[in-house]
Amino acid sequence: MVGSLLASAVSEQKCTVPEMVAYDEAQALLAACTQNIPLLAPEFVSISQACGRVLAEDIRAEVPRPEADISAMDGYAFRCADMEKAGDIGLPLSGQIVAGDTPPPLEQGVAYSILTGARIPAGADCVVAQERTSIMNGHVHLLEQNARNGLNIRRSGEEFCKGDMLLGRGQRLDWRHLPLLAHQGKEQVAVYKRPKICVVANGAEFGATATDCRTELNTQLLATMLQNEGVLVTRCVCRSDSEEDLHKLLHQCAQEADILITTGGISVGQTDHVLPVLSQMGATCLFRRVKMRPGKPMTVMQLGQKMVFCLPGNPGAAAICAQLFVVPFLHGLTGAKQGENASKPIEGKSSFSYVAATDTTCFLPVHFTENRGENLINLVRSVGASDILCLTRASGLLKVSAGQSLQDGDVCEVIPFTV
Amino acid sequence: MVGSLLASAVSEQKCTVPEMVAYDEAQALLAACTQNIPLLAPEFVSISQACGRVLAEDIRAEVPRPEADISAMDGYAFRCADMEKAGDIGLPLSGQIVAGDTPPPLEQGVAYSILTGARIPAGADCVVAQERTSIMNGHVHLLEQNARNGLNIRRSGEEFCKGDMLLGRGQRLDWRHLPLLAHQGKEQVAVYKRPKICVVANGAEFGATATDCRTELNTQLLATMLQNEGVLVTRCVCRSDSEEDLHKLLHQCAQEADILITTGGISVGQTDHVLPVLSQMGATCLFRRVKMRPGKPMTVMQLGQKMVFCLPGNPGAAAICAQLFVVPFLHGLTGAKQGENASKPIEGKSSFSYVAATDTTCFLPVHFTENRGENLINLVRSVGASDILCLTRASGLLKVSAGQSLQDGDVCEVIPFTV
Repeated sequence: MVGSLLASAVSEQKCTVPEMVAYDEAQALLAACTQNIPLLAPEFVSISQACGRVLAEDIRAEVPRPEADISAMDGYAFRCADMEKAGDIGLPLSGQIVAGDTPPPLEQGVAYSILTGARIPAGADCVVAQERTSIMNGHVHLLEQNARNGLNIRRSGEEFCKGDMLLGRGQRLDWRHLPLLAHQGKEQVAVYKRPKICVVANGAEFGATATDCRTELNTQLLATMLQNEGVLVTRCVCRSDSEEDLHKLLHQCAQEADILITTGGISVGQTDHVLPVLSQMGATCLFRRVKMRPGKPMTVMQLGQKMVFCLPGNPGAAAICAQLFVVPFLHGLTGAKQGENASKPIEGKSSFSYVAATDTTCFLPVHFTENRGENLINLVRSVGASDILCLTRASGLLKVSAGQSLQDGDVCEVIPFTV
Repeated sequence: MVGSLLASAVSEQKCTVPEMVAYDEAQALLAACTQNIPLLAPEFVSISQACGRVLAEDIRAEVPRPEADISAMDGYAFRCADMEKAGDIGLPLSGQIVAGDTPPPLEQGVAYSILTGARIPAGADCVVAQERTSIMNGHVHLLEQNARNGLNIRRSGEEFCKGDMLLGRGQRLDWRHLPLLAHQGKEQVAVYKRPKICVVANGAEFGATATDCRTELNTQLLATMLQNEGVLVTRCVCRSDSEEDLHKLLHQCAQEADILITTGGISVGQTDHVLPVLSQMGATCLFRRVKMRPGKPMTVMQLGQKMVFCLPGNPGAAAICAQLFVVPFLHGLTGAKQGENASKPIEGKSSFSYVAATDTTCFLPVHFTENRGENLINLVRSVGASDILCLTRASGLLKVSAGQSLQDGDVCEVIPFTV
């Protein structure tokens, strides 16, 4: 079903205007389409520039950690058997090993002082912490008889061995991952290129000649959201209601960007030129309008290999559609695995009831409170598609499927906002 | 108790070496100390630079939203009473209002076409959607008799009114907040200045002359972590075991930075110069070593008004101590409120048992799985303080207090990593 819809959408040369699609169908169409778009090319960046980027290679350990047997303590290294034999006389202190040294093998019947992280000399099988010893006449004595084979020795490879998988392709890198790369001696790492996105807002009301001039909010909102996803964003505003101006602008953006996003101008009014202009440019329609609220006008076009996300003009709806359609699409381009703190759905129990219309999937702004290990999901007041205040009070969206009757206490999943 | 400990610590001119403190006591000492450190100064930045910064002013609405009554639909605006009176004849179409227009008042007995977001003309009390009308002979006819007062009119102030609190001081700004600021016509906003931090790693083993040369991991790790908190970070490595070199470096860092962080060099070995050097510089000791694992060497000094966080040298422990002590301290400097996705503890149910030693608070790397609306907390394998691999498998830390016996199924709180 999805496959044939996709095929027919892609095969058309002009934008057809199919019936509104159900939300899940829209997502399936987009997902199927994403599979046919090649992953972004990899590029090498230095480790210091890699934070926030998505790994384009698997990283296996070439160097184990620790690289050699090392001391876990500041103390004294010796052979247990030597110490036992020495008894009350203790072992003569005959050397000192600090981290960074390559120590000579331990001679028979002596001890070396050793610092935390320093290599265990060949022959030593035990380190006793400094505070559990006393030094008299240049000899190390134990305060307790607790020496045993392996004590305070960190074995080579105990954290990971050569060949172990450290990080997988698709891992989004943060501070936790960089030390592993540095430990492997990597100065550069392969990451996916950052896609270039042009965001074009439409509206004569943003022009200087409008008597009821409005501040354009969508490009700032979307640029900030998507830059956070590692995307390079250009913002433009078409401030006229001229089809010609819009054509010129979209044509230029399509030259520069890998992905286009438009906001507004996709309704049925006489200033809604986005879809006709895209059709003139040769774009085909993947889906036109979605049975969802907010976000009903949501439309996706395809211009050659480039996706065009036509978002509603109302900023609340534009933000929500970007979170639901654009952000997952971007993750798909890199096969990015989402961390546990990222946009993976969060389960919780609803603290309210809600009935969705039989033909409309609803996305409700919600925030969490916690109670005895349970996430409670609370509704945030919203006046609808234009609402930008509700976004600042919410931490994600609760999906109530078309016709679903959500009950207080139901377990459900929240799509967290990516911030 | 905390107050007097703090007072005595601060009043000493040289670093005293008090007994190890309990973890909660260390946190209380640091929190008390933070209260005496002035908040960072505010500065103005442009909205486009404000993402990730912490708001230093309350933002109340000066402009309501919507600013005026506007249409929620593309359609026709008229008076309900006029339409009723006109009956089958319909109302003559006598004007067109697009978003950005300031429409003249509606004349008696006519309709205007109106686009989504356009101002409602004075006198109109209803908008009927285009698709629910037909136009014949220049007259608007309703397909259904559904006109009613207020239909499809978004009232001025329905989202927020003049005077409403929009955003509070301490709010960390992300894409959700910027449209509100832009809507208020703000080009600049007051945010707290970003603190400057110097991170100094110690270790002769990082020097080129070390025969067992190691890659220094801590400065990269901490710089990346803290830059994410909006901090300006300088990284330095002291590659010698000379007290003089370290003194010179720390002195220079103290001139440049608001906060110092050191890693390593705070144990009892002969190359552990950090604390003696800081004492020589006039720093006083807030606490010296903490009854925690990992992180036992953790020490905090105060150099005038500047805090010095002396972290363990093992990178796993350094990362964990930075998460537990440095990041909350930074939030305290700006009074930053944490979002629901940020470092607020996350409740869950433990899927394992663990008994902490009577004198040691343990921090276990854990990750979550979800089951029927419950967060299950799972233990991540770790070999201890040096472990950097475990950080990449974990999403946070489970605190098991000294002497606590954690049972499988217990509800507990996880401190999520800030990423």
